[in-house]
Amino acid sequence: MLKRLITKNRSYRRFHQDHKIERQTLAELIDLARLCPSGANLQPLKYILSCGAEKNTLIFEQLVWAGYLKDWAGPADGERPSAYIIILGDTEITKTFGCDHGITAQSILLGAVEKGLGGCMVGSIHRKELAKTLDISPRYEILLVLALGKPKEQITIESTEITGDIKYYRDDKQIHHVPKRPLDEIIIG
Amino acid sequence: MLKRLITKNRSYRRFHQDHKIERQTLAELIDLARLCPSGANLQPLKYILSCGAEKNTLIFEQLVWAGYLKDWAGPADGERPSAYIIILGDTEITKTFGCDHGITAQSILLGAVEKGLGGCMVGSIHRKELAKTLDISPRYEILLVLALGKPKEQITIESTEITGDIKYYRDDKQIHHVPKRPLDEIIIG
Repeated sequence: MLKRLITKNRSYRRFHQDHKIERQTLAELIDLARLCPSGANLQPLKYILSCGAEKNTLIFEQLVWAGYLKDWAGPADGERPSAYIIILGDTEITKTFGCDHGITAQSILLGAVEKGLGGCMVGSIHRKELAKTLDISPRYEILLVLALGKPKEQITIESTEITGDIKYYRDDKQIHHVPKRPLDEIIIG
Repeated sequence: MLKRLITKNRSYRRFHQDHKIERQTLAELIDLARLCPSGANLQPLKYILSCGAEKNTLIFEQLVWAGYLKDWAGPADGERPSAYIIILGDTEITKTFGCDHGITAQSILLGAVEKGLGGCMVGSIHRKELAKTLDISPRYEILLVLALGKPKEQITIESTEITGDIKYYRDDKQIHHVPKRPLDEIIIG
């Protein structure tokens, strides 16, 4: 069952933008994050939610999309995320966040998939500009932005044994192909 | 459903050590990790599996357990993990692993819970000694060790609003209590 969720949890970057996501839905996803493991149980992560058009636009403008798709600057208007979750590290709790944000980001996205949504972890962020735009205190380090919405694209998993490379690509039918390394390459002992 | 898994996925540190875990089970968990998101899809993580008594002991000796339980040095013989997964970063692929290991560690542990197992992410590791003992090439950075087994302890989640602190503790019935921050403390905008 979990495997079905994990397989369906692709990095979606095109959405039905008119599909609204309620703040309550985002809060339910954060409640999953809340119950996750955290290094030394410090729980230093804080979250900013966005599901309104205006705030969504401010966040969208500070994200860099899909580095390997050189001729695609990101989702066009109409295909943009309906919501965002900004994951912050609270430096008043600790200065190092280990992989806590990976733990919660994955849990949030799996939760989104279970709700019929999908999303993408965006790590390429104009951090200074985003902090300024949303008036985020220097107390918080911007770790990741999760873009969320109702997916509007088909993504298929391939093997790097076939593609010879890890770079994802889109075919002429706009299907997004993601090469993954085979099991015997990643288990080394 | 996912919430049930996430809630049940506690950081277990005492196990029914005589409960065997097959290598095939560990490989199935790595197959979940294989399908997870990875920064720039680089997939730099590699995995070492252990489910035999001898290798388990070598790994166990290099782990530091439960920092807040000052009078507990770790699980006694008979309550130790039945298996381990060592998560490595392959520096020939990239030098920085972001939060990839958090993403896969959480996915692996959720998979373990679904299989009736449980485990703990251990970040406090005698890395040099572990690398030497298992002859792990300097090519690989040791990121995390996942201890796995059939849990033999009861863990309850509490609110930091009650405990006033994030430190986990054991009561006199050996129940492990883990305080988590409430939702309105971690959603800040």
